[in-house]
Amino acid sequence: MTQKEENILIIGAGLCGSLLALRMAQRGYQVTVYESRPDLRTTDISAGRSINLALSDRGLKAMKMVGIADKVTPFCIPMYGRMIHDIEGNTFASNYSGRTGKYINSISRGGLNGLLLTEAEKYENVTIHFNKKCTGVDIENTIAKFKCYATKEKFEVHADIIFGADGAGSALRKSYYLEKKFLFSYSQNYLTHGYKELEIPAGKIGNHQISKDHLHIWPRGEYMLIALPNLDGSFTVTLFLSYDEGEYNFNNLTNIEKVTEFFKTQFPDALDLIPDIDHEFFNNPTGALGTVKCSPWCYKGKTLLIGDAAHAIVPFYGQGMNASFEDVVVFDEILEQHQGDWSATFKAYQKARKEDTDAIADLAIDNYFEMRDHVANPLFKEKRKLEMDLEKTFPDNYFSKYSMVTFDENIGYAKAMKIGRAQDKALLNLIADHEIDTSKDLKSIFDQVQQETSEILEEDKIAGLK
Amino acid sequence: MTQKEENILIIGAGLCGSLLALRMAQRGYQVTVYESRPDLRTTDISAGRSINLALSDRGLKAMKMVGIADKVTPFCIPMYGRMIHDIEGNTFASNYSGRTGKYINSISRGGLNGLLLTEAEKYENVTIHFNKKCTGVDIENTIAKFKCYATKEKFEVHADIIFGADGAGSALRKSYYLEKKFLFSYSQNYLTHGYKELEIPAGKIGNHQISKDHLHIWPRGEYMLIALPNLDGSFTVTLFLSYDEGEYNFNNLTNIEKVTEFFKTQFPDALDLIPDIDHEFFNNPTGALGTVKCSPWCYKGKTLLIGDAAHAIVPFYGQGMNASFEDVVVFDEILEQHQGDWSATFKAYQKARKEDTDAIADLAIDNYFEMRDHVANPLFKEKRKLEMDLEKTFPDNYFSKYSMVTFDENIGYAKAMKIGRAQDKALLNLIADHEIDTSKDLKSIFDQVQQETSEILEEDKIAGLK
Repeated sequence: MTQKEENILIIGAGLCGSLLALRMAQRGYQVTVYESRPDLRTTDISAGRSINLALSDRGLKAMKMVGIADKVTPFCIPMYGRMIHDIEGNTFASNYSGRTGKYINSISRGGLNGLLLTEAEKYENVTIHFNKKCTGVDIENTIAKFKCYATKEKFEVHADIIFGADGAGSALRKSYYLEKKFLFSYSQNYLTHGYKELEIPAGKIGNHQISKDHLHIWPRGEYMLIALPNLDGSFTVTLFLSYDEGEYNFNNLTNIEKVTEFFKTQFPDALDLIPDIDHEFFNNPTGALGTVKCSPWCYKGKTLLIGDAAHAIVPFYGQGMNASFEDVVVFDEILEQHQGDWSATFKAYQKARKEDTDAIADLAIDNYFEMRDHVANPLFKEKRKLEMDLEKTFPDNYFSKYSMVTFDENIGYAKAMKIGRAQDKALLNLIADHEIDTSKDLKSIFDQVQQETSEILEEDKIAGLK
Repeated sequence: MTQKEENILIIGAGLCGSLLALRMAQRGYQVTVYESRPDLRTTDISAGRSINLALSDRGLKAMKMVGIADKVTPFCIPMYGRMIHDIEGNTFASNYSGRTGKYINSISRGGLNGLLLTEAEKYENVTIHFNKKCTGVDIENTIAKFKCYATKEKFEVHADIIFGADGAGSALRKSYYLEKKFLFSYSQNYLTHGYKELEIPAGKIGNHQISKDHLHIWPRGEYMLIALPNLDGSFTVTLFLSYDEGEYNFNNLTNIEKVTEFFKTQFPDALDLIPDIDHEFFNNPTGALGTVKCSPWCYKGKTLLIGDAAHAIVPFYGQGMNASFEDVVVFDEILEQHQGDWSATFKAYQKARKEDTDAIADLAIDNYFEMRDHVANPLFKEKRKLEMDLEKTFPDNYFSKYSMVTFDENIGYAKAMKIGRAQDKALLNLIADHEIDTSKDLKSIFDQVQQETSEILEEDKIAGLK
């Protein structure tokens, strides 16, 4: 790559910011990154906040783009499906796809972020500063303002281009909102539920105490527990619970007796595996679950929001990190097409990307209800079984919504949502109306589902007068 | 009514604030109102900003509640339907309902607001202060902060209960956002189009130069002109146009030659009636079109957002004022049930009201596209004609979406939206698929539409697994 003249400033060295720094460095730009937290490779800062994540095909595509896919693999634990735990402690496994070799990966946030930082710093044209908190951006003059947590000094940095990869609480986005230089459409929407992380430690010989090949779910309608495996044999458990509604909620679980009663009655098998629940429940923070959407993402050809800063989503589709990584892939393709014209690049990027990030935000909300409530619904279970059969029998032709979203990086989230929702509606209605004759061969059923899905899409199209 | 002890502070003496003040006074509360603008009964402050509005059944219900319906009538000009103007200057009238005696009212914002202020001030227990701008609210201690525009003085007012009826730019809502005392879900979404008001003056003998019995629309896809009659024989014309897209937009209409060219080619018949277009186009402000949603509306039993402050919507369903007036009706009913328990009142009010105000916000966006694009679509026209016939023939049994939203104050916006959208989808698909045999009697068609609508609702229900 030839050396570029532009100075690029990236606010945030999280997953998205460090990947973007690496890619921009590979393209020859002068890249400076400022991160508010300490260097996570030398400091333990993760306690209690989304320790592990699900990495799937869209995210892996980004790793391939920057050439580090091989280095990521050792951090990954493949999860082939969900394992549902009922209230009696029975478990039911269900694969994510009827196709073989399809899985998502449980991965340590810290491990992956550290790898990306190390890879980025291998480039001479990258400098990363830690403990420097962005307090705002003068978007007209591309000057970012910082405060150093170590020295308490305030300072300003001028750049040609500023990227806000500074997450859900983005300082750049806040400056868009407060500077009122343009009509800024903005939304922040919270669920009534929050989350708290707990731990199932490794067994005595460092073993995983429950299947490490699955994402574990304890669905209970009003609340839910999930668990993802870690390389050290432990699991990170996340409790999703209302702040103030229902018999048990974060506001009334104020002593260990009540917490124990809650887990004993609702998640008895999990409680047996969480020895330190007292300390963890009352010392780990309760996190909020919010969705952020906004537009425009850019101001002229000067600043751009990317990753969670542009579109924070709830975690229920396991796509937050994947969507942010895909941002960098899409941005990179568009940068290639518009080399040098930053204003055109930013506009084309948002035009190409916004409907997809809006879609994954909505899909993640849908999955919140699906995981809590629907996985135990008989109609839903029948649909799921049928889809597994269809994917297994027609691996090249049938794709569930989940498969399109999770395993097909060649189809955008918006298209996956549109087709996937119509297909779900077709399946659920055919099953509910007893219109599927399971004695027939699967090919007839396949055709019937395709036909019904097409009709639903056509009817929606006519109703939208498009 | 018995005298109440609570001191009520209302921020904003616009349409919603003055109606609320009147109603709370009737209930015996001590009411103080602070308004940022001068008294519109003695100062002309309306120039260029939504001079007239559409008052329909939901709004009228509120006028009846406070006993002033008779006093409102003289301000009203009934509009029985739309009159579409095509590019050649041809006009096509189309009623709002197939039922007779159904109309919406063009009404002067200033006239109606003045009446409400005067009626409120008849009560000893009401005091209204003008030129006092609210700059923020200490929501924990129910202290509102003001600045007097006349004296420049800053002062604070303590109250037992504070209502934010301070419109789309609400200071109370901003305090919710900035104080971060709770998770505040908030969205502001702008359309790509803005608006500008112009005037068709009265004819030489004070006459209306075009039909005063209609709301006039010049739909042109990318932009649109509408006009509502005033009592003095004039019409207030509103241009809806993109800020920066398309051949003509607000950003490039920078001189009178270009503006004249635009109107001459797109709205020739309207241009002939707007003599002062030069002055008006460049002196009247360009307004933004935004939707605001938020939650919660209340903080404890201390403060409540109401009207546009809680849910600003775009003007395309003519329901903004009606929704705000309906807020006061719904609030009043719930206050009656929970007398004295303000926290319970506020929570119950939001629970009863939020899905309806969310729905009218979405319906108003739908109508933006319908008015711009669909009114000229043959399928849409056929549907409209069929619905008029159905309403005329089955006045007690068939109700179009528009009728439910506009003329039926006994059905909430959310229900009207749900049923209305399904019914629209049924009609459009039946027509598109040539499944309606117009040689058949209307009763068969009525049954067919009802049947198809029910099926659509049922299929949606199954797909939502509810």
